[in-house]
Amino acid sequence: MQHDKHSHAGSDKKSCPGREKYLAGKRVMPKALAAGVDITSIVDNMDAYNGGRLRAACHLMKEKYSAADVTVGLSIAGALTPAGLGPSTIIPLINHGFVDWLSTTGANMYHDLHFAFDMSLHRGSHAVNDADLRSKGVTRIYDILFDFEDVLMETDKRLRKIMLRPEFQKEMGTREFYHHLGKAINEIEQEKKLGEVSILAAAYRNGIPVFTSSPGDSTIGMNIAGLELLAEAKGLGNKFKLKINPSLDVNDSTAIILNAKDFENGKTGVILIGGGSPKNFMLQTAPQIQEVLMIPGAGQDYDINITDARPDTGGLSGAPPSEAASWGKIDPSKIDQAVTAYVDVTVAFPLLVAYTLQNTSPKKFKRLYDRGDELRRKLVESYLKHNREIGDLESLMKKLP
Amino acid sequence: MQHDKHSHAGSDKKSCPGREKYLAGKRVMPKALAAGVDITSIVDNMDAYNGGRLRAACHLMKEKYSAADVTVGLSIAGALTPAGLGPSTIIPLINHGFVDWLSTTGANMYHDLHFAFDMSLHRGSHAVNDADLRSKGVTRIYDILFDFEDVLMETDKRLRKIMLRPEFQKEMGTREFYHHLGKAINEIEQEKKLGEVSILAAAYRNGIPVFTSSPGDSTIGMNIAGLELLAEAKGLGNKFKLKINPSLDVNDSTAIILNAKDFENGKTGVILIGGGSPKNFMLQTAPQIQEVLMIPGAGQDYDINITDARPDTGGLSGAPPSEAASWGKIDPSKIDQAVTAYVDVTVAFPLLVAYTLQNTSPKKFKRLYDRGDELRRKLVESYLKHNREIGDLESLMKKLP
Amino acid sequence: MQHDKHSHAGSDKKSCPGREKYLAGKRVMPKALAAGVDITSIVDNMDAYNGGRLRAACHLMKEKYSAADVTVGLSIAGALTPAGLGPSTIIPLINHGFVDWLSTTGANMYHDLHFAFDMSLHRGSHAVNDADLRSKGVTRIYDILFDFEDVLMETDKRLRKIMLRPEFQKEMGTREFYHHLGKAINEIEQEKKLGEVSILAAAYRNGIPVFTSSPGDSTIGMNIAGLELLAEAKGLGNKFKLKINPSLDVNDSTAIILNAKDFENGKTGVILIGGGSPKNFMLQTAPQIQEVLMIPGAGQDYDINITDARPDTGGLSGAPPSEAASWGKIDPSKIDQAVTAYVDVTVAFPLLVAYTLQNTSPKKFKRLYDRGDELRRKLVESYLKHNREIGDLESLMKKLP
Amino acid sequence: MQHDKHSHAGSDKKSCPGREKYLAGKRVMPKALAAGVDITSIVDNMDAYNGGRLRAACHLMKEKYSAADVTVGLSIAGALTPAGLGPSTIIPLINHGFVDWLSTTGANMYHDLHFAFDMSLHRGSHAVNDADLRSKGVTRIYDILFDFEDVLMETDKRLRKIMLRPEFQKEMGTREFYHHLGKAINEIEQEKKLGEVSILAAAYRNGIPVFTSSPGDSTIGMNIAGLELLAEAKGLGNKFKLKINPSLDVNDSTAIILNAKDFENGKTGVILIGGGSPKNFMLQTAPQIQEVLMIPGAGQDYDINITDARPDTGGLSGAPPSEAASWGKIDPSKIDQAVTAYVDVTVAFPLLVAYTLQNTSPKKFKRLYDRGDELRRKLVESYLKHNREIGDLESLMKKLP
Repeated sequence: MQHDKHSHAGSDKKSCPGREKYLAGKRVMPKALAAGVDITSIVDNMDAYNGGRLRAACHLMKEKYSAADVTVGLSIAGALTPAGLGPSTIIPLINHGFVDWLSTTGANMYHDLHFAFDMSLHRGSHAVNDADLRSKGVTRIYDILFDFEDVLMETDKRLRKIMLRPEFQKEMGTREFYHHLGKAINEIEQEKKLGEVSILAAAYRNGIPVFTSSPGDSTIGMNIAGLELLAEAKGLGNKFKLKINPSLDVNDSTAIILNAKDFENGKTGVILIGGGSPKNFMLQTAPQIQEVLMIPGAGQDYDINITDARPDTGGLSGAPPSEAASWGKIDPSKIDQAVTAYVDVTVAFPLLVAYTLQNTSPKKFKRLYDRGDELRRKLVESYLKHNREIGDLESLMKKLP
Repeated sequence: MQHDKHSHAGSDKKSCPGREKYLAGKRVMPKALAAGVDITSIVDNMDAYNGGRLRAACHLMKEKYSAADVTVGLSIAGALTPAGLGPSTIIPLINHGFVDWLSTTGANMYHDLHFAFDMSLHRGSHAVNDADLRSKGVTRIYDILFDFEDVLMETDKRLRKIMLRPEFQKEMGTREFYHHLGKAINEIEQEKKLGEVSILAAAYRNGIPVFTSSPGDSTIGMNIAGLELLAEAKGLGNKFKLKINPSLDVNDSTAIILNAKDFENGKTGVILIGGGSPKNFMLQTAPQIQEVLMIPGAGQDYDINITDARPDTGGLSGAPPSEAASWGKIDPSKIDQAVTAYVDVTVAFPLLVAYTLQNTSPKKFKRLYDRGDELRRKLVESYLKHNREIGDLESLMKKLP
Repeated sequence: MQHDKHSHAGSDKKSCPGREKYLAGKRVMPKALAAGVDITSIVDNMDAYNGGRLRAACHLMKEKYSAADVTVGLSIAGALTPAGLGPSTIIPLINHGFVDWLSTTGANMYHDLHFAFDMSLHRGSHAVNDADLRSKGVTRIYDILFDFEDVLMETDKRLRKIMLRPEFQKEMGTREFYHHLGKAINEIEQEKKLGEVSILAAAYRNGIPVFTSSPGDSTIGMNIAGLELLAEAKGLGNKFKLKINPSLDVNDSTAIILNAKDFENGKTGVILIGGGSPKNFMLQTAPQIQEVLMIPGAGQDYDINITDARPDTGGLSGAPPSEAASWGKIDPSKIDQAVTAYVDVTVAFPLLVAYTLQNTSPKKFKRLYDRGDELRRKLVESYLKHNREIGDLESLMKKLP
Repeated sequence: MQHDKHSHAGSDKKSCPGREKYLAGKRVMPKALAAGVDITSIVDNMDAYNGGRLRAACHLMKEKYSAADVTVGLSIAGALTPAGLGPSTIIPLINHGFVDWLSTTGANMYHDLHFAFDMSLHRGSHAVNDADLRSKGVTRIYDILFDFEDVLMETDKRLRKIMLRPEFQKEMGTREFYHHLGKAINEIEQEKKLGEVSILAAAYRNGIPVFTSSPGDSTIGMNIAGLELLAEAKGLGNKFKLKINPSLDVNDSTAIILNAKDFENGKTGVILIGGGSPKNFMLQTAPQIQEVLMIPGAGQDYDINITDARPDTGGLSGAPPSEAASWGKIDPSKIDQAVTAYVDVTVAFPLLVAYTLQNTSPKKFKRLYDRGDELRRKLVESYLKHNREIGDLESLMKKLP
């Protein structure tokens, strides 16, 4: 009877208050683009579909992430640094105070080193003969080409030397590892006078903790493993003592969220560029609080995800904020402050950052790296206070030989 | 022996001239985004992946499509007009002289009418209950919401009245149909004083031929069919004489390409937004020349495609320019002047147009609609001159009763 | 307070009846695959994500589409026939009685001809040099290769001769056009003794109406246009009288749905392979009934869509059944009988058909082509009975010169 | 002059030997599906596009991976175990002897535990209200629903108890960690008499090393971190000594490839289901050999990747085998023995495994876990023999305090 109802549209509409609500959104009537259009206008003009989502993400940056009491985590997956997104996009966002902690693949930090080392990667084409490339010693990431020897082998060589410095000789998380590496890279970057090209150096300067959840996966981890193999072969295990302990990172990242929400009564937001392990690691902080440590909590307040992975394949890379809410990763009462834009990252991320630079003031650096001990102490304190299973576990632990 | 060879990298490189060629592209070292960054800089700064492709597309617009002798076709698929891309993006590109002919789904032109009729579509959400929407008379296109009665039913009603005007009472292609419709819409648009909101009106004013390859598919075609049904039922076939003949469109679109290349010694380029039937229709002009009419020809000179369809599924929507070259649709010697960017259209298309507005001068309108008869005459002339099968076909045709 | 609540899980659960409902679905505990596994078992074993959707689609085929009173439409977009899905998949589904009407791109029917003409397409590679291909006269569809002259040029030549037969010399829809073409192709297929390789021939034999919503788009339409150009050039318009009128197709396809639901009290289901214009054309039948002809109606009862297009881009190709419900295309009360599986069509479609063949009995052919006049008469009758605008339109029509 | 050349097709073809080569592939002429069709036939029948790639992958399994001297690695990313692919697909492939080592996200192994613990996950819908789910204590992975308390909290609790057993109290890689966990899970699985439902148990029984490159990322790593926090808080660090050292995994996985190729003169193949960190970790073994350890080597021999990530976004998840060849990950001379199929994993992976079970004999288990010490010794030996940098590094190492 669809039709008949509509034939009396006039009277119907009066009895249909829900209708007005559906139609209460801004009218779709964008301004015409003109030669003088700027980035803010072009984004504000995007009314619908993924363009609309990008706009919503930009508005979240402007209205929510910009607040002093919001602690912002950035996760990056996919080969962003080889494409130059470090110098162009991520470092400006860091310098603007909008990255309080960073979760990244190891590969992104490995390729970040080439920039600090002044090694050149080049625009090329993806339609080349890879067997020929290999025979000529050229390596490819989609349409970026670079020399195998001069870039990869040489980066590895320098990295190994850095990791043989004394400050690296201990067990640590990637958080501390990247701090030491960032310090070394920062010196090289300043020597080379290339400007700010390395994310690791920028993070070091601004006290930003950087985490990699898969420390053995990437050429950095491969080179740590290579040195460990040498130490083992030569009986130098008492000299080379660098070991990455992932548990330190799990707790130290969790401590950031707990501190922001419970100790400083602030809010937390995430900017998830791509999916993968960096996204999972960043989002697991809330379940670590609630599910493992059993400290009451409510998940991230704000969530921006730019990705090409769709939810229907079941993977976390494409899982939307609403699904995360069912896990307690995102506060379920704030799903409308969560946005997923299915737009290519190399286009959308620079726009998001440019919009932010144009529409917000720089935020004061939280320098959470410097506060690592304090944050961890607060985490332990909360854990001991809330966890009801501690007695059992402690008694089991004590029985261990 | 990969490794050993590389161990003598110094000597190797001398004997490896191909290596330099691979590494000759611009170094990946983008500038830092800053608050003052403009659209041209942000795009020029995109070094790689789909961002790099978008940049390449923008540069093609600036360096090739901008030339006076380049005839540019624009194809649009996907629900772009409901999202406001008419007023924001397509009309400014038309007004800048960069659209000489247009291939579009009927749906895009149907929804274009709402804008001219001053009917409002609204920003909404895709996460709504559609059964509830339907019961309240609200219709949805992803995250756009509008009233079923006030928008759809009312647009249809007005459209039917327009199509009952005398100028529509004949057999025609969509090219002519949209011209008459555009004239009517242009008047309404000017009356409403809404500014330039309708693509059809803008095309009419500037003499741009518009084609829909699937004339019965969309509410426009549905309403033509509805009127035909009425005429049939009431024996008014001698009054209502509007019939769309798709063959006219096939030849008239082909004549545009032939004229540009063979009679004016110019070049042709296409801007393919999405895939589907509009893309196929635009690209089939070259095979129509070479394969069906048997007139020698070499395919489109320039090709920009922004799409989310990938080539591996076999469909034309995701087929890259190189595949099109094997059909003669694209000139095989110019594959490097063809770019596919897999970026969401609602983000990439406004950027492409803004970049063009900022970096090119307005082009003179070619007003190809006005020259329809001339172009068709030239097509017939070339066909008669080159086609070796004409004798056979003519004799078969003459034998028909 | 998430956590505290859960700490009293026992009591909570009693007061939480909704929980049981959420967890009432079949347990995820599939059987182990074994060497003897058959297609039905492998599909029934798919518990989740897109595999789960494919299973749901197969079950809809078995439980709903199999009923005698369900009229089934199949739409195909994307280059399926070049990949051999005609002989392997579509013809078996036709022969099983599960296709009552067909909506297809013209390209699919054009490439269907090669099979009947015994012209060979070959498995190849997509990683080839297309300029080299073109120079050697080889044409490519992704990884399928074939000869330009022997396949394309020769198919066109034969097609033109067929279309010069007397039965083609009139105005018609593609429905009638494909009937005549199918008759001719059926004869050729039987002569060649290749078995059943052509969809058009199979449709002809079984009285299945076939529609192409974009008749000028594809090589078939290009050749009709070529002949029309010749007739025009030579003044033979009184001999060559073939004209495709898309309005006939709009009404004749709509008449199928109206007849099934209103006159035979049956149900309708669609199988949408890919998106594009064929999907839109098939789904617009319900709005044509409700919105244009103003006959009360409730949309399709069942909907299966296998596609790689996602909803977030706004296009119809990826629009889900729930969005279609807000348009009245799908009955909003039956959204749970609609399934979208985002799985590659060349894998999912053969599985869907094999599952159907294994789990259902052949259905009796409805031979809707043969009943074309009757269906159209019923449509006119319903239209005249329900449409409240007829008086106005008739009077406008009568005033036409 | 395309056309003129083709007009003399006969003579042309003689002078065009490359043409025949292009057209030498099997003719596209599949058999008709019938009720009795089996999985082997349906796959062999897939001629083109992603269906063709799936067929090629199946043929690689049958012809190459089946050889006794081929060492096969399987990587899995995306939430496969919650969807039941452990019991249905992965365990049968393991039992058939086609998985010699496994690279997986931690999440997949965490959710594997639910099956062994006899906790139920349920088929549900993705179109549910997640805030309501959360309030009712139900957790969602796309369309799978399960109880937060009974499944997640309870799994965590049991896992913590297992990890407090003595055999876990040491530094180890995930390889050894999963071995101990697998042993415990195997006992539980056998107790519960549920059949073979856990991948970890199946891997344990068959001596298959399992690696997770991101050990802190997933609930398993979260619980290790939780226990470490407790040990730290209570001063029990001398009791709870479990620490995951990722370097051990890097070298132990690399040792598998080196042993297979250099010491046993065999071949290696990978089956990459999805992308992400597990894919990267599996493929980095060859660069670890060549680039870090500087042992000559040539990359994987065979490569099957089933994924929905496309190459153009630059990420490793979608990077094709040819790109991997430019890194030395895949042997560049064997790119034709590498296949990427862009098909949903929940459909394609069961088909790949069923095809393998139907067309190959079971392979003898290599039990590489049991040979861990031997493989590592061989790796050290090769490293010392080939690496030219050892002297420098050793001397730097010795200088450490």
